[in-house]
Amino acid sequence: MPDGARPWQLHGDRALPADPSTRAAAREIYQQTRALPIVSMHGHVEAQTIDEDLPFGNPAELLVVPDHYLVRMLVSQGASVDRLGVAPVDPASSVVPEQDPRAVWRRFCESWHLFRGTPTRYWMEHELVEVFGVAERPSAESADRIYDHLDAALRSDAFRPRALFDSFDIEILASTDPAWSPLTHHANLAAAGWGERVVPTFRPDPLLHLDRPGWCSDVDLLSAAAGLDVTSYPTYLEALRERRAAFVAAGARATDHGHLLADTTPLSDAEAHRIFDLALSGVAPSPAEAQAFSGHMLFQMAAMSAEDGLVMQLHPGVLRDHDRSVLATFGADKGYDIPVQAEYTRSLRPLLEAFGHHPGFRLVVFTIDETVYSRELAPLAGVYPAMRLGAPWWFLDSPDGMRRFRETSTETAGFYNTTGFVDDTRAFCSIPARHDLSRRVDAGYLARLVVEHRLDLDEATETAVDLAYTLPKAAYARRG
Amino acid sequence: MPDGARPWQLHGDRALPADPSTRAAAREIYQQTRALPIVSMHGHVEAQTIDEDLPFGNPAELLVVPDHYLVRMLVSQGASVDRLGVAPVDPASSVVPEQDPRAVWRRFCESWHLFRGTPTRYWMEHELVEVFGVAERPSAESADRIYDHLDAALRSDAFRPRALFDSFDIEILASTDPAWSPLTHHANLAAAGWGERVVPTFRPDPLLHLDRPGWCSDVDLLSAAAGLDVTSYPTYLEALRERRAAFVAAGARATDHGHLLADTTPLSDAEAHRIFDLALSGVAPSPAEAQAFSGHMLFQMAAMSAEDGLVMQLHPGVLRDHDRSVLATFGADKGYDIPVQAEYTRSLRPLLEAFGHHPGFRLVVFTIDETVYSRELAPLAGVYPAMRLGAPWWFLDSPDGMRRFRETSTETAGFYNTTGFVDDTRAFCSIPARHDLSRRVDAGYLARLVVEHRLDLDEATETAVDLAYTLPKAAYARRG
Amino acid sequence: MPDGARPWQLHGDRALPADPSTRAAAREIYQQTRALPIVSMHGHVEAQTIDEDLPFGNPAELLVVPDHYLVRMLVSQGASVDRLGVAPVDPASSVVPEQDPRAVWRRFCESWHLFRGTPTRYWMEHELVEVFGVAERPSAESADRIYDHLDAALRSDAFRPRALFDSFDIEILASTDPAWSPLTHHANLAAAGWGERVVPTFRPDPLLHLDRPGWCSDVDLLSAAAGLDVTSYPTYLEALRERRAAFVAAGARATDHGHLLADTTPLSDAEAHRIFDLALSGVAPSPAEAQAFSGHMLFQMAAMSAEDGLVMQLHPGVLRDHDRSVLATFGADKGYDIPVQAEYTRSLRPLLEAFGHHPGFRLVVFTIDETVYSRELAPLAGVYPAMRLGAPWWFLDSPDGMRRFRETSTETAGFYNTTGFVDDTRAFCSIPARHDLSRRVDAGYLARLVVEHRLDLDEATETAVDLAYTLPKAAYARRG
Repeated sequence: MPDGARPWQLHGDRALPADPSTRAAAREIYQQTRALPIVSMHGHVEAQTIDEDLPFGNPAELLVVPDHYLVRMLVSQGASVDRLGVAPVDPASSVVPEQDPRAVWRRFCESWHLFRGTPTRYWMEHELVEVFGVAERPSAESADRIYDHLDAALRSDAFRPRALFDSFDIEILASTDPAWSPLTHHANLAAAGWGERVVPTFRPDPLLHLDRPGWCSDVDLLSAAAGLDVTSYPTYLEALRERRAAFVAAGARATDHGHLLADTTPLSDAEAHRIFDLALSGVAPSPAEAQAFSGHMLFQMAAMSAEDGLVMQLHPGVLRDHDRSVLATFGADKGYDIPVQAEYTRSLRPLLEAFGHHPGFRLVVFTIDETVYSRELAPLAGVYPAMRLGAPWWFLDSPDGMRRFRETSTETAGFYNTTGFVDDTRAFCSIPARHDLSRRVDAGYLARLVVEHRLDLDEATETAVDLAYTLPKAAYARRG
Repeated sequence: MPDGARPWQLHGDRALPADPSTRAAAREIYQQTRALPIVSMHGHVEAQTIDEDLPFGNPAELLVVPDHYLVRMLVSQGASVDRLGVAPVDPASSVVPEQDPRAVWRRFCESWHLFRGTPTRYWMEHELVEVFGVAERPSAESADRIYDHLDAALRSDAFRPRALFDSFDIEILASTDPAWSPLTHHANLAAAGWGERVVPTFRPDPLLHLDRPGWCSDVDLLSAAAGLDVTSYPTYLEALRERRAAFVAAGARATDHGHLLADTTPLSDAEAHRIFDLALSGVAPSPAEAQAFSGHMLFQMAAMSAEDGLVMQLHPGVLRDHDRSVLATFGADKGYDIPVQAEYTRSLRPLLEAFGHHPGFRLVVFTIDETVYSRELAPLAGVYPAMRLGAPWWFLDSPDGMRRFRETSTETAGFYNTTGFVDDTRAFCSIPARHDLSRRVDAGYLARLVVEHRLDLDEATETAVDLAYTLPKAAYARRG
Repeated sequence: MPDGARPWQLHGDRALPADPSTRAAAREIYQQTRALPIVSMHGHVEAQTIDEDLPFGNPAELLVVPDHYLVRMLVSQGASVDRLGVAPVDPASSVVPEQDPRAVWRRFCESWHLFRGTPTRYWMEHELVEVFGVAERPSAESADRIYDHLDAALRSDAFRPRALFDSFDIEILASTDPAWSPLTHHANLAAAGWGERVVPTFRPDPLLHLDRPGWCSDVDLLSAAAGLDVTSYPTYLEALRERRAAFVAAGARATDHGHLLADTTPLSDAEAHRIFDLALSGVAPSPAEAQAFSGHMLFQMAAMSAEDGLVMQLHPGVLRDHDRSVLATFGADKGYDIPVQAEYTRSLRPLLEAFGHHPGFRLVVFTIDETVYSRELAPLAGVYPAMRLGAPWWFLDSPDGMRRFRETSTETAGFYNTTGFVDDTRAFCSIPARHDLSRRVDAGYLARLVVEHRLDLDEATETAVDLAYTLPKAAYARRG
């Protein structure tokens, strides 16, 4: 830090509303939630990370390269993906990524202004100051000093995964795992007494999309994991059911489904057989057939959830890998997934008519098209007992995005038909920042209701605690 | 009320903006509108209720069972519809609804927290405190005491329909009536000198949807009411015209149309004949034919409005009875009507090109898909002289919903292309609460314009009075 | 002005946020941008106006008749288009427009209340008070006095186009010109030393829509201007390329494209040939063919931009001339253009996959469907380096519209993937008002971030200057 500069500090009132009386009420509400344990029921941190408990890598590797929010912003202003240290999928590729993590870190620091007004700015500030004790703003000038500071921290035991898990006060963390996962790391964690703290989530997406390249070999993985030969539609369902049971035994609370559409129309049994057999024989089904089959399988997953009590999570409406040449060179999840319009009212009707009142079934729906909050999702969650509305997802997991979510869903669905906060990140060190921001924004929204005399302060405080802690636990309790 | 507890009181500033200077301006504006008479130009209170003037039933029967906002919220958290006292449509059904109104009332009171942040909370507070003088918050503990208080009130003459009508200061109330209604209660009311205070609204929906079960028998009702045999498309139009004339004679100001789509494309005469004759012969038209015919009939209704001066109201974009087994058991209007995306620009074009500049025609359009305010409805209402934009409807008739309506429509349509407040409720006792809330929210929006120096205070006050009183009367004055 | 009345003055804080601490920060930020020169990179003021520098006409002719915002609002409340002085396209028409400009002006003044809450109100106040020194509010009573005041001003040299251009402190103004424009006025301006101050924009719309009436004769204009015979698809492309080169030589920075859809799917060469030849032979292509060809041509325009460095602007999603009888009588641009839903994620994919990372290509996208900001446009602009998100357009160029734009785009795209302010007006005297309003609204948004401790004040001020001045210049710098 340059001599004489004031150390970088985060203001205690950040992300609370500007109006003084509303801020005072928000502060009072936030005081009741800020120190609550973290319930993280949907994330992409690997169980392996917690199980092996190895030191994280260097600052660039930990904080820049794998974070698609960061990568996409730097790319949008002219940095090429490989200059940010992202490696091509094909090791024989002529693209040689930046090898020097310090150079990658510098690129990020000198572009700090690009993140103004974005949640990445908020999360990174929180991580740098609160988690790592950095005392100056990122810039071209400060980049190397911050790098050294972080690098030293990452070599200490206090910054290994389990130590951070404890210091973050994470009560429970759900990982996301392919249907064929052997769940070895979860087993190790259970043996180490961490079985209640890290639980798996069943994610069968690749198996439900018959037209994905590699589907046939993924089915082989399913067969191997389930210990039975998938040779037909019935054995396919049986293998999925078997794997769900293995996840339940390993402590899973939920399944997760990322589809382009929210369609849940079941096919006739004969049609499902026909399309499945076609695909298994190696003949690619038509796009329409593949899409119909994936909607059909959402219905089947709901039926299985009503039996085994796994909470069903649905994340539709994203066109993955918008630029297919970036996908071919660097692989998925590089920041090129773009939302499209989503429809829920008609799409969820078959599923909700069949299971929407089933006491053993719970459906948590997310959206990245926020126009559906007031039009479709709040009205649906506000009547079907099986349904809950998940937290603002992805691009909407931001201060104004979260505020708009409350403003457009609460009046119809209330607070108690939402799940409370769900973070959904692969950036382990950002988990406390994300929960903290959510608690601040909810405190601000509730404070406005108080100051506008639409809610009493005792009610607002109770609701804030429920949103931060009680509701996520309740929403993701296995049913039945 | 428990000893020593502070009586439950509503704050005079409720639903006004938090910022002190904006609140001060809002208070000043609201003072000019709070005591204005109520103009209620679109509702679902029955003329029969006012005509017969019988005491209302018990508290559950009056305030819970028929209110689909309340029922749906309690159902969404696990109460079954029948436990809330809702009776099955088939008296021979094995479903036996809760018989004890006190038990239903308790269920509502113990679930008071579910309504936090919803307009139901605001309306019920207003009804309980302002209309009925209840002095404590609903809870499991207070439920019986509040029940007794309400029950006693409902037995007194001051709480009979006409007495409330007077004490609510309702200047005019429009009921909604089927096309074949004999309008007997309106005739009685007119004979009793209430003809200007309670007027009918012509609602022909069931007759315009050829594929509705029961359409043929509804046509028989139309024939009987019109005093002519509907045996063909021309006699069908004639009967509708005759009934409209009877409504006009009974003081009607408007028609009302609830369609899935806003489509208004006319068919050729030959095609309209063909589809109608098919349906009348007992052959179900295809869904596409039925939909095309209903769009065609909206165009015909507009043509008739241009002749007879009835204001045409359009309420599209709702998928009715999302759960068909609930419909089969308990009937319609149980909280399972869910919005879908609505399109207006292309859909209204045929109607607006034909009648949008007609001096005898007025179209009032509502939406439950709020994304269309800034994109389609405000631009259309901001140029076609025949069109007005109705008030926020249904799920959007809420503090933040009404605020967003003004924020997204005013800049393009101004205030004077909207109708001012229209309440649309079947809960008689909630009418003052709804108008009061609307006046507060409009005062808050106008106050912000004043404090931001976008409007002078005298202009804001004049506009507030127009929105609360002048505009609804003007928008629903019969034309021609 | 009536004796004793206080002169009409505009408050220095207008359009700044109500909350006092936010307003104080906003004032500080706005002080840094209010006096910056105007960069007006997309407009509809004619180069001829600046070149010839003739006095403007009377007040009605300057401020009412050509302003479709004004005309549409007056029409929506019952004024007929011709009573506002708009002439029919056919001089032989029986419609005789109002001949007295004073009568037109009176109609506007007595309808002043209709503009409450609209940006027209804000712009007109600014024009009347700041530009023309009017000292009283428009009303029926003041109309004639204001008319006289304006009329006298317009006869003075200080109100001729170049004098206003200087006093408005416009650094650069881009006009919009048909592809076949001889660019004579731009040449004159260049000769007069104004070549850097007024630049043309290449707008080929009519040539890209094969089904427009008059397309064949427009192609003749293209042939003549390009100095080559367009007899085939290749010569058509060649002529377009030639004209683009002429625009580049005349100082153009950009092209502009107003399409119904944002589709950019290229056709095969053979298919493009086939459809083009069909049209050129005088046979109308089907609507589907014409639409496919126009999408194909957007792709071709992008390819040419990647070669010649002209920034490509896209303005989709408007259904032009909603009422075709108004179009037939009075022509286009009379306020009857109505937005429709727009789709970008899938539509722009072909173009962005091909050119989205091209260093010589820049795409600026506008929308009039604001639901796409958070769902599609911010995610796209937040990753593709070639893409920038334009300013709020048309009906959205309003205080709340601009605020919502920042609230729904910044968290995903940041500030630096937007172009800063772009005014898009044909009302020359409103240019300063529009830039001023934008600077105030951006100051207000940035101030909120500061007061909520999401941004430091130095960062906010730097960003405000960038949005007002630096970014528009950078976004519209010719590439390559």
